[in-house]
Amino acid sequence: MKCIVILFEEYETLDVFGPVEILGRLPESFEISFHSEKGTVVRSSQGVEVLTRPFPQSLDSDSILLLPGGMGTRTLVNNQKFLSTIKDLAQSAAYVLCVCTGSALLAKTGLLNGRSATTNKMAFDWVVSQNDKVSWQKQARWVVDGKYYTSSGVSAGMDMSLGFVRDMMDQSIAELVANQIEYLWNQDKNQDPFGV
Amino acid sequence: MKCIVILFEEYETLDVFGPVEILGRLPESFEISFHSEKGTVVRSSQGVEVLTRPFPQSLDSDSILLLPGGMGTRTLVNNQKFLSTIKDLAQSAAYVLCVCTGSALLAKTGLLNGRSATTNKMAFDWVVSQNDKVSWQKQARWVVDGKYYTSSGVSAGMDMSLGFVRDMMDQSIAELVANQIEYLWNQDKNQDPFGV
Repeated sequence: MKCIVILFEEYETLDVFGPVEILGRLPESFEISFHSEKGTVVRSSQGVEVLTRPFPQSLDSDSILLLPGGMGTRTLVNNQKFLSTIKDLAQSAAYVLCVCTGSALLAKTGLLNGRSATTNKMAFDWVVSQNDKVSWQKQARWVVDGKYYTSSGVSAGMDMSLGFVRDMMDQSIAELVANQIEYLWNQDKNQDPFGV
Repeated sequence: MKCIVILFEEYETLDVFGPVEILGRLPESFEISFHSEKGTVVRSSQGVEVLTRPFPQSLDSDSILLLPGGMGTRTLVNNQKFLSTIKDLAQSAAYVLCVCTGSALLAKTGLLNGRSATTNKMAFDWVVSQNDKVSWQKQARWVVDGKYYTSSGVSAGMDMSLGFVRDMMDQSIAELVANQIEYLWNQDKNQDPFGV
Protein backbone atom coordinates (compact mmCIF):
# COMPACT_ATOMS: atom_id res chain seq x y z
CA MET A 1 0.00 0.00 0.00
CA LYS A 2 1.09 3.53 -0.69
CA CYS A 3 0.46 6.50 1.55
CA ILE A 4 0.24 9.80 -0.31
CA VAL A 5 0.78 12.74 2.04
CA ILE A 6 -0.57 16.11 0.84
CA LEU A 7 1.52 19.08 1.95
CA PHE A 8 1.03 22.82 1.49
CA GLU A 9 2.49 26.03 2.88
CA GLU A 10 1.67 26.39 6.60
CA TYR A 11 0.67 22.80 7.20
CA GLU A 12 0.69 21.87 10.88
CA THR A 13 3.85 19.90 11.74
CA LEU A 14 2.46 17.17 14.02
CA ASP A 15 -0.68 16.68 11.88
CA VAL A 16 1.67 15.13 9.34
CA PHE A 17 4.52 13.58 11.27
CA GLY A 18 2.49 11.92 14.04
CA PRO A 19 0.68 9.70 11.51
CA VAL A 20 3.87 9.32 9.42
CA GLU A 21 5.76 8.02 12.48
CA ILE A 22 3.05 5.39 12.99
CA LEU A 23 2.40 4.35 9.38
CA GLY A 24 6.15 4.38 8.72
CA ARG A 25 6.65 1.66 11.33
CA LEU A 26 4.21 -0.90 9.97
CA PRO A 27 5.75 -4.34 9.56
CA GLU A 28 4.59 -4.51 5.94
CA SER A 29 5.99 -1.04 5.46
CA PHE A 30 3.71 1.35 3.66
CA GLU A 31 5.50 3.36 1.02
CA ILE A 32 5.07 6.96 2.15
CA SER A 33 5.60 9.90 -0.20
CA PHE A 34 5.08 13.64 0.19
CA HIS A 35 3.36 15.74 -2.45
CA SER A 36 2.45 19.36 -3.04
CA GLU A 37 0.86 21.36 -5.83
CA LYS A 38 4.19 22.34 -7.40
CA GLY A 39 6.42 19.60 -6.00
CA THR A 40 8.62 22.16 -4.26
CA VAL A 41 9.99 22.52 -0.75
CA VAL A 42 7.03 23.20 1.54
CA ARG A 43 7.27 24.86 4.96
CA SER A 44 5.13 24.10 8.03
CA SER A 45 3.86 26.74 10.47
CA GLN A 46 6.67 25.60 12.79
CA GLY A 47 9.34 26.07 10.12
CA VAL A 48 9.88 22.48 8.93
CA GLU A 49 10.92 22.58 5.27
CA VAL A 50 10.19 19.28 3.53
CA LEU A 51 10.99 18.09 0.02
CA THR A 52 7.89 17.12 -1.97
CA ARG A 53 6.98 15.74 -5.37
CA PRO A 54 4.14 17.08 -7.54
CA PHE A 55 0.66 15.64 -6.98
CA PRO A 56 0.39 12.20 -8.57
CA GLN A 57 -1.63 11.99 -11.79
CA SER A 58 -3.47 8.94 -10.50
CA LEU A 59 -3.50 6.64 -7.49
CA ASP A 60 -3.23 2.89 -7.13
CA SER A 61 -6.58 1.62 -5.88
CA ASP A 62 -5.12 0.54 -2.51
CA SER A 63 -3.60 3.94 -1.75
CA ILE A 64 -4.17 5.95 1.40
CA LEU A 65 -4.45 9.72 1.22
CA LEU A 66 -3.28 11.71 4.28
CA LEU A 67 -4.62 15.25 4.48
CA PRO A 68 -3.26 17.40 7.32
CA GLY A 69 -4.61 20.68 8.64
CA GLY A 70 -2.99 23.91 9.66
CA MET A 71 -3.24 27.63 8.96
CA GLY A 72 -2.67 26.95 5.27
CA THR A 73 -6.16 25.49 5.00
CA ARG A 74 -7.66 28.94 5.63
CA THR A 75 -6.81 30.04 2.10
CA LEU A 76 -6.91 26.62 0.42
CA VAL A 77 -10.65 26.24 1.12
CA ASN A 78 -11.07 28.92 -1.59
CA ASN A 79 -8.61 27.43 -4.07
CA GLN A 80 -10.81 25.57 -6.58
CA LYS A 81 -7.91 24.05 -8.52
CA PHE A 82 -6.41 22.61 -5.34
CA LEU A 83 -9.79 21.31 -4.13
CA SER A 84 -10.52 19.72 -7.51
CA THR A 85 -7.23 17.78 -7.37
CA ILE A 86 -7.85 16.72 -3.77
CA LYS A 87 -11.32 15.52 -4.75
CA ASP A 88 -9.95 13.39 -7.61
CA LEU A 89 -7.28 11.87 -5.37
CA ALA A 90 -9.71 11.24 -2.50
CA GLN A 91 -12.22 9.56 -4.81
CA SER A 92 -9.66 7.11 -6.14
CA ALA A 93 -7.99 6.41 -2.79
CA ALA A 94 -8.91 3.32 -0.77
CA TYR A 95 -8.88 5.40 2.43
CA VAL A 96 -8.65 9.07 3.26
CA LEU A 97 -7.20 10.17 6.61
CA CYS A 98 -7.84 13.81 7.55
CA VAL A 99 -6.18 15.33 10.61
CA CYS A 100 -7.38 18.52 12.32
CA THR A 101 -8.60 21.18 9.86
CA GLY A 102 -7.65 18.92 6.94
CA SER A 103 -11.31 17.88 7.13
CA ALA A 104 -12.30 21.42 6.04
CA LEU A 105 -10.52 20.78 2.75
CA LEU A 106 -12.23 17.44 2.26
CA ALA A 107 -15.60 18.93 3.26
CA LYS A 108 -15.21 21.62 0.59
CA THR A 109 -14.93 18.92 -2.09
CA GLY A 110 -18.44 17.69 -1.16
CA LEU A 111 -17.20 14.17 -0.51
CA LEU A 112 -18.22 14.35 3.16
CA ASN A 113 -21.78 15.45 2.39
CA GLY A 114 -24.22 13.34 4.41
CA ARG A 115 -21.36 11.73 6.29
CA SER A 116 -20.16 12.02 9.88
CA ALA A 117 -16.85 13.73 10.51
CA THR A 118 -14.92 15.63 13.16
CA THR A 119 -12.17 18.21 13.26
CA ASN A 120 -10.06 20.48 15.49
CA LYS A 121 -12.17 21.63 18.44
CA MET A 122 -10.70 25.14 18.65
CA ALA A 123 -11.43 25.70 14.95
CA PHE A 124 -14.75 23.84 15.06
CA ASP A 125 -17.05 26.71 14.10
CA TRP A 126 -14.87 27.76 11.19
CA VAL A 127 -14.74 24.21 9.81
CA VAL A 128 -18.51 23.75 10.19
CA SER A 129 -19.02 27.03 8.30
CA GLN A 130 -17.26 25.52 5.28
CA ASN A 131 -19.99 22.93 4.67
CA ASP A 132 -23.18 22.41 6.69
CA LYS A 133 -24.13 19.24 4.79
CA VAL A 134 -21.61 17.30 6.86
CA SER A 135 -22.75 15.74 10.13
CA TRP A 136 -20.01 17.34 12.26
CA GLN A 137 -19.36 15.56 15.56
CA LYS A 138 -18.49 17.80 18.50
CA GLN A 139 -17.51 14.94 20.77
CA ALA A 140 -15.16 12.55 19.00
CA ARG A 141 -11.44 11.87 19.11
CA TRP A 142 -11.88 10.58 15.60
CA VAL A 143 -14.72 9.49 13.31
CA VAL A 144 -14.86 6.71 10.72
CA ASP A 145 -17.51 6.87 7.99
CA GLY A 146 -16.89 4.45 5.16
CA LYS A 147 -13.45 5.05 3.78
CA TYR A 148 -13.17 8.49 5.40
CA TYR A 149 -11.30 8.90 8.69
CA THR A 150 -11.32 12.36 10.31
CA SER A 151 -9.62 13.28 13.58
CA SER A 152 -9.69 16.08 16.11
CA GLY A 153 -6.81 18.50 16.40
CA VAL A 154 -3.14 17.83 15.83
CA SER A 155 -2.14 15.03 18.25
CA ALA A 156 -5.46 13.21 17.71
CA GLY A 157 -4.09 12.20 14.32
CA MET A 158 -1.82 9.74 16.11
CA ASP A 159 -4.72 8.07 17.94
CA MET A 160 -6.66 7.86 14.67
CA SER A 161 -3.68 6.42 12.81
CA LEU A 162 -3.33 3.67 15.41
CA GLY A 163 -7.08 3.09 15.12
CA PHE A 164 -6.70 2.84 11.35
CA VAL A 165 -3.92 0.28 11.79
CA ARG A 166 -6.20 -1.70 14.13
CA ASP A 167 -9.06 -1.59 11.62
CA MET A 168 -6.85 -2.54 8.66
CA MET A 169 -4.65 -5.10 10.34
CA ASP A 170 -4.97 -6.07 13.97
CA GLN A 171 -5.24 -4.70 17.52
CA SER A 172 -1.94 -6.36 18.41
CA ILE A 173 -0.08 -4.60 15.60
CA ALA A 174 -1.48 -1.22 16.65
CA GLU A 175 -0.40 -1.95 20.23
CA LEU A 176 3.04 -3.04 19.07
CA VAL A 177 3.57 0.24 17.22
CA ALA A 178 2.27 2.27 20.18
CA ASN A 179 4.69 0.42 22.47
CA GLN A 180 7.61 0.93 20.10
CA ILE A 181 7.09 4.67 20.20
CA GLU A 182 6.24 4.59 23.95
CA TYR A 183 2.93 6.24 23.19
CA LEU A 184 -0.08 6.07 25.52
CA TRP A 185 -2.66 5.40 22.82
CA ASN A 186 -6.15 6.81 23.44
CA GLN A 187 -7.91 3.85 21.87
CA ASP A 188 -11.55 4.91 22.17
CA LYS A 189 -12.52 7.17 19.30
CA ASN A 190 -15.59 8.37 21.22
CA GLN A 191 -13.58 9.60 24.22
CA ASP A 192 -12.84 13.24 23.51
CA PRO A 193 -11.44 15.29 26.41
CA PHE A 194 -11.28 18.37 24.19
CA GLY A 195 -14.82 18.12 22.78
CA VAL A 196 -16.84 21.32 22.63
CA MET B 1 15.78 32.06 22.43
CA LYS B 2 16.95 29.90 19.57
CA CYS B 3 16.34 26.18 19.25
CA ILE B 4 19.02 24.37 17.27
CA VAL B 5 17.75 20.98 16.04
CA ILE B 6 20.44 18.45 15.11
CA LEU B 7 19.48 16.15 12.24
CA PHE B 8 21.28 13.20 10.65
CA GLU B 9 20.45 10.37 8.26
CA GLU B 10 17.91 7.98 9.82
CA TYR B 11 16.77 10.27 12.58
CA GLU B 12 13.43 9.21 14.09
CA THR B 13 10.60 11.37 12.73
CA LEU B 14 8.55 12.00 15.88
CA ASP B 15 11.65 12.47 18.08
CA VAL B 16 12.10 15.72 16.20
CA PHE B 17 8.66 16.91 15.20
CA GLY B 18 6.84 16.25 18.47
CA PRO B 19 9.09 18.72 20.34
CA VAL B 20 9.15 21.07 17.32
CA GLU B 21 5.33 21.21 17.29
CA ILE B 22 5.37 22.23 20.97
CA LEU B 23 8.32 24.64 20.97
CA GLY B 24 7.07 26.15 17.71
CA ARG B 25 3.84 27.20 19.41
CA LEU B 26 5.31 29.17 22.27
CA PRO B 27 3.84 32.66 22.58
CA GLU B 28 7.31 34.20 22.60
CA SER B 29 8.11 32.08 19.59
CA PHE B 30 11.43 30.34 19.75
CA GLU B 31 13.38 30.58 16.53
CA ILE B 32 13.79 26.97 15.42
CA SER B 33 16.39 25.93 12.86
CA PHE B 34 17.49 22.56 11.53
CA HIS B 35 21.15 21.63 11.13
CA SER B 36 23.21 18.69 9.91
CA GLU B 37 26.90 17.97 9.41
CA LYS B 38 26.90 19.00 5.75
CA GLY B 39 23.82 21.22 5.68
CA THR B 40 22.14 18.99 3.10
CA VAL B 41 18.72 17.39 2.82
CA VAL B 42 18.48 14.77 5.56
CA ARG B 43 16.09 11.81 5.53
CA SER B 44 14.36 10.22 8.54
CA SER B 45 13.81 6.47 8.97
CA GLN B 46 10.21 7.13 7.89
CA GLY B 47 11.26 8.93 4.70
CA VAL B 48 10.84 12.58 5.72
CA GLU B 49 13.37 14.66 3.77
CA VAL B 50 14.09 17.95 5.51
CA LEU B 51 16.22 20.90 4.43
CA THR B 52 19.02 21.69 6.87
CA ARG B 53 21.80 24.22 7.33
CA PRO B 54 25.37 23.32 8.37
CA PHE B 55 26.12 23.10 12.09
CA PRO B 56 26.47 26.58 13.58
CA GLN B 57 30.02 27.71 14.40
CA SER B 58 28.87 28.95 17.79
CA LEU B 59 25.70 29.28 19.83
CA ASP B 60 24.10 32.23 21.58
CA SER B 61 24.28 31.59 25.32
CA ASP B 62 20.48 31.25 25.63
CA SER B 63 20.20 28.60 22.90
CA ILE B 64 18.51 25.23 23.28
CA LEU B 65 19.98 22.18 21.59
CA LEU B 66 17.54 19.43 20.52
CA LEU B 67 19.14 16.05 19.90
CA PRO B 68 16.83 13.33 18.53
CA GLY B 69 17.44 9.60 18.38
CA GLY B 70 16.85 6.98 15.75
CA MET B 71 18.72 4.26 13.91
CA GLY B 72 21.25 6.83 12.71
CA THR B 73 22.69 7.03 16.23
CA ARG B 74 23.99 3.46 15.92
CA THR B 75 26.82 4.60 13.66
CA LEU B 76 27.15 8.16 14.96
CA VAL B 77 28.27 6.92 18.41
CA ASN B 78 31.52 5.97 16.65
CA ASN B 79 31.90 9.20 14.66
CA GLN B 80 34.44 11.24 16.65
CA LYS B 81 34.14 14.34 14.48
CA PHE B 82 30.36 14.43 14.88
CA LEU B 83 30.60 13.80 18.65
CA SER B 84 33.20 16.52 19.06
CA THR B 85 30.90 19.06 17.37
CA ILE B 86 27.91 17.94 19.44
CA LYS B 87 30.00 18.28 22.60
CA ASP B 88 31.01 21.85 21.72
CA LEU B 89 27.42 22.82 20.94
CA ALA B 90 26.04 21.14 24.07
CA GLN B 91 28.60 22.84 26.28
CA SER B 92 27.70 26.30 25.03
CA ALA B 93 23.91 25.72 24.98
CA ALA B 94 21.72 26.93 27.85
CA TYR B 95 19.75 23.68 27.71
CA VAL B 96 20.12 20.37 25.92
CA LEU B 97 17.03 18.28 25.17
CA CYS B 98 17.71 14.66 24.13
CA VAL B 99 14.89 12.45 22.91
CA CYS B 100 15.07 8.64 22.78
CA THR B 101 18.51 7.34 21.76
CA GLY B 102 19.72 10.92 21.26
CA SER B 103 21.00 10.49 24.83
CA ALA B 104 23.48 7.87 23.57
CA LEU B 105 25.13 10.58 21.47
CA LEU B 106 25.30 12.99 24.40
CA ALA B 107 26.55 10.21 26.70
CA LYS B 108 29.41 9.48 24.29
CA THR B 109 30.62 13.08 24.62
CA GLY B 110 31.14 12.49 28.36
CA LEU B 111 28.91 15.42 29.29
CA LEU B 112 26.46 13.12 31.10
CA ASN B 113 29.16 11.49 33.26
CA GLY B 114 28.00 11.42 36.88
CA ARG B 115 24.58 12.69 35.88
CA SER B 116 21.14 11.06 35.79
CA ALA B 117 19.58 10.41 32.39
CA THR B 118 17.09 8.18 30.64
CA THR B 119 16.50 6.90 27.12
CA ASN B 120 14.39 4.63 24.91
CA LYS B 121 13.36 1.56 26.91
CA MET B 122 13.59 -0.91 24.02
CA ALA B 123 17.14 0.25 23.29
CA PHE B 124 18.06 0.66 26.96
CA ASP B 125 20.86 -1.93 27.16
CA TRP B 126 22.51 -0.62 24.00
CA VAL B 127 22.46 2.96 25.27
CA VAL B 128 23.82 1.95 28.68
CA SER B 129 26.64 0.08 26.94
CA GLN B 130 27.79 3.37 25.37
CA ASN B 131 28.78 4.88 28.72
CA ASP B 132 28.50 3.29 32.15
CA LYS B 133 29.53 6.50 33.95
CA VAL B 134 25.98 7.84 33.46
CA SER B 135 23.36 7.11 36.12
CA TRP B 136 20.82 5.62 33.69
CA GLN B 137 17.24 5.63 34.99
CA LYS B 138 15.14 2.63 34.01
CA GLN B 139 11.90 4.13 35.28
CA ALA B 140 11.45 7.69 34.04
CA ARG B 141 9.36 9.35 31.36
CA TRP B 142 12.05 11.99 31.35
CA VAL B 143 14.94 13.12 33.56
CA VAL B 144 16.23 16.61 34.32
CA ASP B 145 19.80 16.99 35.62
CA GLY B 146 21.06 20.55 35.51
CA LYS B 147 20.72 21.84 31.98
CA TYR B 148 20.36 18.34 30.52
CA TYR B 149 16.89 16.96 29.74
CA THR B 150 16.67 13.37 28.50
CA SER B 151 13.46 11.54 27.58
CA SER B 152 12.30 8.00 26.98
CA GLY B 153 11.45 6.80 23.49
CA VAL B 154 9.94 8.81 20.65
CA SER B 155 6.60 10.18 21.93
CA ALA B 156 8.07 10.86 25.40
CA GLY B 157 9.86 13.80 23.79
CA MET B 158 6.51 15.61 23.69
CA ASP B 159 5.90 15.14 27.41
CA MET B 160 9.43 16.30 28.17
CA SER B 161 9.07 19.34 25.91
CA LEU B 162 5.91 20.39 27.73
CA GLY B 163 7.76 19.80 31.01
CA PHE B 164 10.58 22.00 29.73
CA VAL B 165 8.07 24.74 28.86
CA ARG B 166 6.64 24.45 32.39
CA ASP B 167 10.12 24.70 33.95
CA MET B 168 11.17 27.65 31.76
CA MET B 169 7.92 29.57 31.72
CA ASP B 170 4.81 28.45 33.52
CA GLN B 171 2.46 25.52 34.09
CA SER B 172 -0.38 27.45 32.46
CA ILE B 173 1.59 28.01 29.25
CA ALA B 174 2.47 24.31 29.02
CA GLU B 175 -1.21 23.46 29.54
CA LEU B 176 -2.26 26.00 26.93
CA VAL B 177 0.03 24.44 24.33
CA ALA B 178 -1.13 20.91 25.23
CA ASN B 179 -4.74 22.04 24.83
CA GLN B 180 -4.05 23.73 21.51
CA ILE B 181 -2.70 20.47 20.08
CA GLU B 182 -5.38 18.43 21.91
CA TYR B 183 -2.65 16.42 23.59
CA LEU B 184 -3.16 14.45 26.80
CA TRP B 185 0.06 15.50 28.46
CA ASN B 186 1.67 12.97 30.80
CA GLN B 187 2.87 15.59 33.26
CA ASP B 188 4.70 13.42 35.79
CA LYS B 189 8.24 12.72 34.64
CA ASN B 190 8.53 9.82 37.10
CA GLN B 191 5.50 7.96 35.72
CA ASP B 192 6.86 5.61 33.09
CA PRO B 193 4.48 2.94 31.76
CA PHE B 194 7.20 1.63 29.45
CA GLY B 195 9.98 1.40 32.05
CA VAL B 196 12.06 -1.76 32.11
